[in-house]
Amino acid sequence: MTTLNHLINGARVDGEGRTQDLYNPSTGEVSGQVSLASQATVESAIEAAHNAFPAWRNTPPAKRARVMFRFKQLLEENAEKIAHLIGQEHGKISHDAAGELQRGIENVEYACGVPELLKGEYSKNTGPGIDSWSEFQPLGVVAGITPFNFPAMVPLWMYPMAIACGNTFVLKPSERDPTSALYIAELALAAGLPPGVLNVVNGDKEAVDTLLNDPRVQAVSFVGSTPIAEYIYSRASANGKRCQALGGAKNHAIVMPDADMDNVVNSLTGAAFGSSGERCMALSVAVAVGDKAADTLIEKMQAQMQSLKVGVFSDAGNDFGPVITKQHQEKVLGYIDSAEQQGATVVVDGRGVSVPGYENGFYVGGTLIDRVTPEMTCYKEEIFGPVLLVVRADSMEQAMQLIDEHEYGNGTCIYTRDGEAARYFSDNIQVGMVGINVPLPVPVSYHSFGGWKRSLFGDLSAYGPDAVRFYTKRKTITQRWPSAGIREGAQFAFPA
Amino acid sequence: MTTLNHLINGARVDGEGRTQDLYNPSTGEVSGQVSLASQATVESAIEAAHNAFPAWRNTPPAKRARVMFRFKQLLEENAEKIAHLIGQEHGKISHDAAGELQRGIENVEYACGVPELLKGEYSKNTGPGIDSWSEFQPLGVVAGITPFNFPAMVPLWMYPMAIACGNTFVLKPSERDPTSALYIAELALAAGLPPGVLNVVNGDKEAVDTLLNDPRVQAVSFVGSTPIAEYIYSRASANGKRCQALGGAKNHAIVMPDADMDNVVNSLTGAAFGSSGERCMALSVAVAVGDKAADTLIEKMQAQMQSLKVGVFSDAGNDFGPVITKQHQEKVLGYIDSAEQQGATVVVDGRGVSVPGYENGFYVGGTLIDRVTPEMTCYKEEIFGPVLLVVRADSMEQAMQLIDEHEYGNGTCIYTRDGEAARYFSDNIQVGMVGINVPLPVPVSYHSFGGWKRSLFGDLSAYGPDAVRFYTKRKTITQRWPSAGIREGAQFAFPA
Amino acid sequence: MTTLNHLINGARVDGEGRTQDLYNPSTGEVSGQVSLASQATVESAIEAAHNAFPAWRNTPPAKRARVMFRFKQLLEENAEKIAHLIGQEHGKISHDAAGELQRGIENVEYACGVPELLKGEYSKNTGPGIDSWSEFQPLGVVAGITPFNFPAMVPLWMYPMAIACGNTFVLKPSERDPTSALYIAELALAAGLPPGVLNVVNGDKEAVDTLLNDPRVQAVSFVGSTPIAEYIYSRASANGKRCQALGGAKNHAIVMPDADMDNVVNSLTGAAFGSSGERCMALSVAVAVGDKAADTLIEKMQAQMQSLKVGVFSDAGNDFGPVITKQHQEKVLGYIDSAEQQGATVVVDGRGVSVPGYENGFYVGGTLIDRVTPEMTCYKEEIFGPVLLVVRADSMEQAMQLIDEHEYGNGTCIYTRDGEAARYFSDNIQVGMVGINVPLPVPVSYHSFGGWKRSLFGDLSAYGPDAVRFYTKRKTITQRWPSAGIREGAQFAFPA
Amino acid sequence: MTTLNHLINGARVDGEGRTQDLYNPSTGEVSGQVSLASQATVESAIEAAHNAFPAWRNTPPAKRARVMFRFKQLLEENAEKIAHLIGQEHGKISHDAAGELQRGIENVEYACGVPELLKGEYSKNTGPGIDSWSEFQPLGVVAGITPFNFPAMVPLWMYPMAIACGNTFVLKPSERDPTSALYIAELALAAGLPPGVLNVVNGDKEAVDTLLNDPRVQAVSFVGSTPIAEYIYSRASANGKRCQALGGAKNHAIVMPDADMDNVVNSLTGAAFGSSGERCMALSVAVAVGDKAADTLIEKMQAQMQSLKVGVFSDAGNDFGPVITKQHQEKVLGYIDSAEQQGATVVVDGRGVSVPGYENGFYVGGTLIDRVTPEMTCYKEEIFGPVLLVVRADSMEQAMQLIDEHEYGNGTCIYTRDGEAARYFSDNIQVGMVGINVPLPVPVSYHSFGGWKRSLFGDLSAYGPDAVRFYTKRKTITQRWPSAGIREGAQFAFPA
Repeated sequence: MTTLNHLINGARVDGEGRTQDLYNPSTGEVSGQVSLASQATVESAIEAAHNAFPAWRNTPPAKRARVMFRFKQLLEENAEKIAHLIGQEHGKISHDAAGELQRGIENVEYACGVPELLKGEYSKNTGPGIDSWSEFQPLGVVAGITPFNFPAMVPLWMYPMAIACGNTFVLKPSERDPTSALYIAELALAAGLPPGVLNVVNGDKEAVDTLLNDPRVQAVSFVGSTPIAEYIYSRASANGKRCQALGGAKNHAIVMPDADMDNVVNSLTGAAFGSSGERCMALSVAVAVGDKAADTLIEKMQAQMQSLKVGVFSDAGNDFGPVITKQHQEKVLGYIDSAEQQGATVVVDGRGVSVPGYENGFYVGGTLIDRVTPEMTCYKEEIFGPVLLVVRADSMEQAMQLIDEHEYGNGTCIYTRDGEAARYFSDNIQVGMVGINVPLPVPVSYHSFGGWKRSLFGDLSAYGPDAVRFYTKRKTITQRWPSAGIREGAQFAFPA
Repeated sequence: MTTLNHLINGARVDGEGRTQDLYNPSTGEVSGQVSLASQATVESAIEAAHNAFPAWRNTPPAKRARVMFRFKQLLEENAEKIAHLIGQEHGKISHDAAGELQRGIENVEYACGVPELLKGEYSKNTGPGIDSWSEFQPLGVVAGITPFNFPAMVPLWMYPMAIACGNTFVLKPSERDPTSALYIAELALAAGLPPGVLNVVNGDKEAVDTLLNDPRVQAVSFVGSTPIAEYIYSRASANGKRCQALGGAKNHAIVMPDADMDNVVNSLTGAAFGSSGERCMALSVAVAVGDKAADTLIEKMQAQMQSLKVGVFSDAGNDFGPVITKQHQEKVLGYIDSAEQQGATVVVDGRGVSVPGYENGFYVGGTLIDRVTPEMTCYKEEIFGPVLLVVRADSMEQAMQLIDEHEYGNGTCIYTRDGEAARYFSDNIQVGMVGINVPLPVPVSYHSFGGWKRSLFGDLSAYGPDAVRFYTKRKTITQRWPSAGIREGAQFAFPA
Repeated sequence: MTTLNHLINGARVDGEGRTQDLYNPSTGEVSGQVSLASQATVESAIEAAHNAFPAWRNTPPAKRARVMFRFKQLLEENAEKIAHLIGQEHGKISHDAAGELQRGIENVEYACGVPELLKGEYSKNTGPGIDSWSEFQPLGVVAGITPFNFPAMVPLWMYPMAIACGNTFVLKPSERDPTSALYIAELALAAGLPPGVLNVVNGDKEAVDTLLNDPRVQAVSFVGSTPIAEYIYSRASANGKRCQALGGAKNHAIVMPDADMDNVVNSLTGAAFGSSGERCMALSVAVAVGDKAADTLIEKMQAQMQSLKVGVFSDAGNDFGPVITKQHQEKVLGYIDSAEQQGATVVVDGRGVSVPGYENGFYVGGTLIDRVTPEMTCYKEEIFGPVLLVVRADSMEQAMQLIDEHEYGNGTCIYTRDGEAARYFSDNIQVGMVGINVPLPVPVSYHSFGGWKRSLFGDLSAYGPDAVRFYTKRKTITQRWPSAGIREGAQFAFPA
Repeated sequence: MTTLNHLINGARVDGEGRTQDLYNPSTGEVSGQVSLASQATVESAIEAAHNAFPAWRNTPPAKRARVMFRFKQLLEENAEKIAHLIGQEHGKISHDAAGELQRGIENVEYACGVPELLKGEYSKNTGPGIDSWSEFQPLGVVAGITPFNFPAMVPLWMYPMAIACGNTFVLKPSERDPTSALYIAELALAAGLPPGVLNVVNGDKEAVDTLLNDPRVQAVSFVGSTPIAEYIYSRASANGKRCQALGGAKNHAIVMPDADMDNVVNSLTGAAFGSSGERCMALSVAVAVGDKAADTLIEKMQAQMQSLKVGVFSDAGNDFGPVITKQHQEKVLGYIDSAEQQGATVVVDGRGVSVPGYENGFYVGGTLIDRVTPEMTCYKEEIFGPVLLVVRADSMEQAMQLIDEHEYGNGTCIYTRDGEAARYFSDNIQVGMVGINVPLPVPVSYHSFGGWKRSLFGDLSAYGPDAVRFYTKRKTITQRWPSAGIREGAQFAFPA
């Protein structure tokens, strides 16, 4: 069994420090080890990025973009391999892993347009003979700290744009499933990134804190749980760094009585159980407006869930795989228990699931819970498992109030055919990403990803246009050329 | 003598709490008192803003803009009165106060364009039949905390744009010269702002902390000194608020040997001594490249400074007035003393100045100090007085290194005729606002104001396009209308 | 009775040439004369604009904008007077004239934001050490030729933006109702436009052809009928001028069976009969989908039209006034006759209307015609009168086909509650301005106005963002400063 | 010897019609034939494009972009082959052909960003409860007519953006060197364009006129000579098509006395003689300010030109190759003769050149002519050959006047170190593309290419951001959803 190490200054290095086991959650077995970088190792990565910055910053944006074009190509050529690496350590089924990678590649595509995106604003004659313009200059060394649930995609939300904007980067992927991120970073180097422009360190809190404390790191992008996001944001901010920290979610769908219920059920099934619900945009609460809608929803969901298949990542016939760890499996099961104890109705129960041949895998079956109320633990907290809660509301207003009062404000959705209901909902709901008949309203790569309330700490969203602003700082130049007779021809025609 | 109170929910109110003396720095005499709002008073202002938000948010941007059009008109009609209010409490000469107000009005002009500035991004067919767009929605209640040195302008950097974007506002102006800010806010109400949309509370740390702690306040804009800026930023950030906090400066001008020295001296004089140097964009350090340039600069500055006139704010023949307080006067004089003691040459000495008839005013004369070095106290700290330091450098590189190594990165300037020197300087210097032959490169209102390094805490600059982003949050909507046969004509033509 | 003359180079001048009667269409009486400029007179206006251009072009955009701010103020202060001038010559009721003026003022408001709108695109390092940026420079002398139906608004669509962008302007308003345009132009001069920046010539084809032929005129904006628009466009294009020429319309509303029919009837009434239907965005055809919708529509419209009041412009209790001329009155009546003859059903007949006290006015009453078919003359041509046609379609597809096959493509509307129908319609319909439950989808001033098909000749729409592009030309500058040792410090430190 | 045919609806077809010889200008020999499409053949291409439009228009922009990503990759993989095809028919040396292709590929790169570029403008609450947004919809069938001098690049200026925007395309490349364009179009199909989206017809005036007359063609992009451009523009405009037609040039460089003359000579040599001067951005006139600058320039150019090598396209050691035809060779030689006869000094004479082994090739040697004056034929007309004219001016103003008075306004350049001279020149010169120390200021692909005066007919420039506007039409939608009680919960909760 091998130990996954680090990628620093263009080379794989072992560094010093501790190691930790890697698991295959589909089988429950240890699949290898990963190094946990010491402070010194992380600092050497920062040093490499720091040294690579001046030359990379001065590389024309179109040349930087061309590396991204080649990177996209290499990602596509190696897509199958990457999907396998993702599945092995994360557990998601191959089609899901391929989908994740595709969304990541779309961020690389967006980074290919960086010459356009970096355009500054130019004003002639801000005063007589005075011109003024803004430039968006790169920050320097930027760090990214990414979660286990999208081991390939979330790093690709960050460094393609950061690097295309002229920064250099240190990535710390999740220590639970770091292999795909490291492999992908090597493809980025193969695409032409100079050594030191992109570095990957594996690690845990020691690595994170080193990134947060080192004064050479100018900015930190983070995706993970809300408590950690809050820690990262406050620490980075106190250290004078720019920071965006994305946290947890509890995404509600409102099901209006006029919705096409077959469409609701089809799309909710994927949105709730896909990737075992381990997505920050997973649709985990359905709020049915009116008992009739609720009853229909429950009935049709129950029928639909008969055919849901949970199992090993490598079998494309499965709908979703295991959760990430044994501990997380137990936590999810505990939420289902608590729901039952607190009075909800477990309509479809995924607790007893066993996958033949993979009995030690960390599986939880698709679970549907009706008559959930806001006081219940399962409602208040993010479950991050294949569990769909149904809450019954009397009116659209009441449904919206539920959403607005929840701690998180990442994504939400309404199912309706009515233009006015859709407009009222999207205008007023206190959530950053809103779907109208779209259960997973993840913005495409040319828009930006950002929740509201405690789902995002920071001013600017992830990827898309906001990433340009996050990874650059504005410089405004005001220029006047005093007339000193030099321009006049006579002087030139008859020089002294 | 009157006590200046607060403007809450459309009315002047006394509130509870302490009071503090107001001074006329030109005479050194007490001119009145100002209330210092208690926590309860500040909370009542926040409450008013909170209540006013829903209706204001839903007011079409074009209607909000129309209030700004009227506000601009009222400001222009009352310009003389405002300039007098500024001068009386701040000490700046009437032409300088009028200039300050004009820059403030330009921010109101920019806010008049808010329907254009709020446009979101619309994408058709992000997927088959799926559209996606972003909206920039207002935040809610926003606070502004502003400094003494631009009592009229800096509030106008903030609330016109914040309010035009649909937010409601609580302003806490400097307790040293709050009268003009309060008067101007009343003009904004007279222009048509509904009660509660703009509130002004006078106060000190208690008021500030209340604004920083109240969960209804969504964002804080601050301009002041760096230590306070850092405090504000870290406290606001820790409380989950959006924050931009602008701090101190030490703005250097590089004087290249090819510069037109008469132009340098003319423009430096205004930039160094205007408003007694109490500007965060004041040009306080001239770095002459080569002894020949330095000698010429010193000689010409010395001659030019013979005619500099310091005196009472109400005499338009004066070039600049007193500094803000007795304590500040002593601090500035102490910096000059320290420069002398640490080996610099005081070429023109403003320490002994006395203004006939205003002997108790807080005056410091224009001061020129040669042969300053980076180790000296007067170089390391922001003096905020009418003191110009000259540092001698052997090369442009050395001059740039001085700038880059200084704690602050607000503004800077180069004097040259050479296109390449200008381009190299503006590209590489680690300062946010750069002038080329422009000593005070304050961006116009349709660009944004922001220093680098410890001159600004936060991601987004003040006023201009960045203000739109600071005072709004992005919401991204993804919409799909499932086809359910309703559109087809037959169904409509022959309905069941 | 007076003769309205011209405004050239800042002064009212009589010029040479012929004159023509002006009418008050509410009474049918001659109210004055208007001069018809000779070629020489028009050329003197062009000359004035040509001479004023260099200085105006170099005036900072923010200063140009400030004239627009004052212009807006003057328009508002004189709104009542202007509305009267409009009504007297055009016939529209005072509330309608005030509304027209308000839309015009909104274009002035947009022009106030020109410093933002003129920003060019700036790219650092398009190659190593090479920067590139675009500027949007004014064209020079620009002409506007405007129609009778919006004598105040359409000129304000044009010259505020043209002038704010740095151009100088020659306006030729409609010779039928020129007084308000001339009065408004004088307000623009009073607001601070230098002489020659805005000139108004009254005239007919001789004036138009002079503007089209003079090589100093760089661009022409036109609004009128399609045959003239086509003539203007082809002549201006052949002469190397930039041109946008807006022509006729036949705007259809689709009434879907799920629409709220009371809302349909209310909004259609204003859209069809307001301003006697003499609007290029008037809703002149309602396409009901299904006979049930058609029958309901006819029934409710008929009831609603009982209370429609046609009469003199000065009585605010009237809903609409006369049409513009006797000839036009006869033409409109002829269309109603032809509809009847060709088999349509005249449900409400406005042919016999007589307004007591104003028997010689050019009145046509509100007319509703059912069972119109595409072959009828009244359907194929633009009536430009208070006549609403109802066409019956079996399906939405059929309704859309009608619209797409019509010569014009200015505006259209769908009434529905269904999100999918709305999206399908707006996506596919071959019309430039689309309303969803909005019968007059005139874009606000910060969007642009432009029909498709034979409703607009040219690439760029009127007013709004497109106006910036129409009234400027792109210049792209690519800059490199070769390093020649001058920047290095040694040279400066030890100059020869 | 083969006959090059057409590419229609995804397949190579012979069509009907005449044929014409193709030459290898390096040898002077016939290398093959090209079909000249009849009207019927062109119409079949238009038909194919017309049929392919509806599906392509509805393909999500991101999917259309993905074809462009693959297209770029295929172009890079086949670069050497394409450069050979270019050289064989055009005569340009391999490095020059590779450079041409690279600039073309950069336009494909820009087209990859089309999802970002197509974003419309979205406004919430343009009125109470009313939203409005613009969409940029494709036009339909678009045609491109391209010149011999950049047989690969100019087509790539056009169809990648046109197609990425959702249009379908018919290309008619130059009949003198069509092979590379056809080969490249096949790569675009191989990259995934559906049949009919891109069609290539070879032909002459019959093909051109068919494209100009067919009502299904919505827009025409043209690059060629000014007389043809004017013909194309006026015909297309008269037929109601959108058109941009780029014509000839006479690009001047002003050489200021303070310029680094070695840099001037180095860069002028490439800009004047590269590609035998057959570039619309070729620098064909140097205006030296002052006799001293002129004398130095002549002396150094003469020296530099000793090493200029003209010869066969396939030898990379050559600097430039033959001109395109025997007739053109004679025309260029005639211009040199006329210059001599009209009094200019032929300093370096390229008339007698003979390339050993390629004696029948269409060669003209690099030619330098001093003391040219504006009255001479060689100055007034575009030579399009390897001939550099030197004009002597007394002052910068005089030099600028020369440029402004010339018929063309494509590109220009100033050589200076002086910031003020550069700013004055770029601000005032009546030319669309301006270089500061950059002799060929061709905008990069993310800016737009457009001359002024008689160098471009049309409102919008080629490629870059302007191409998005040229290849789309604005549609503005205004939406209101009337409240009809449907949204209220009660109705849903207790439906009838």
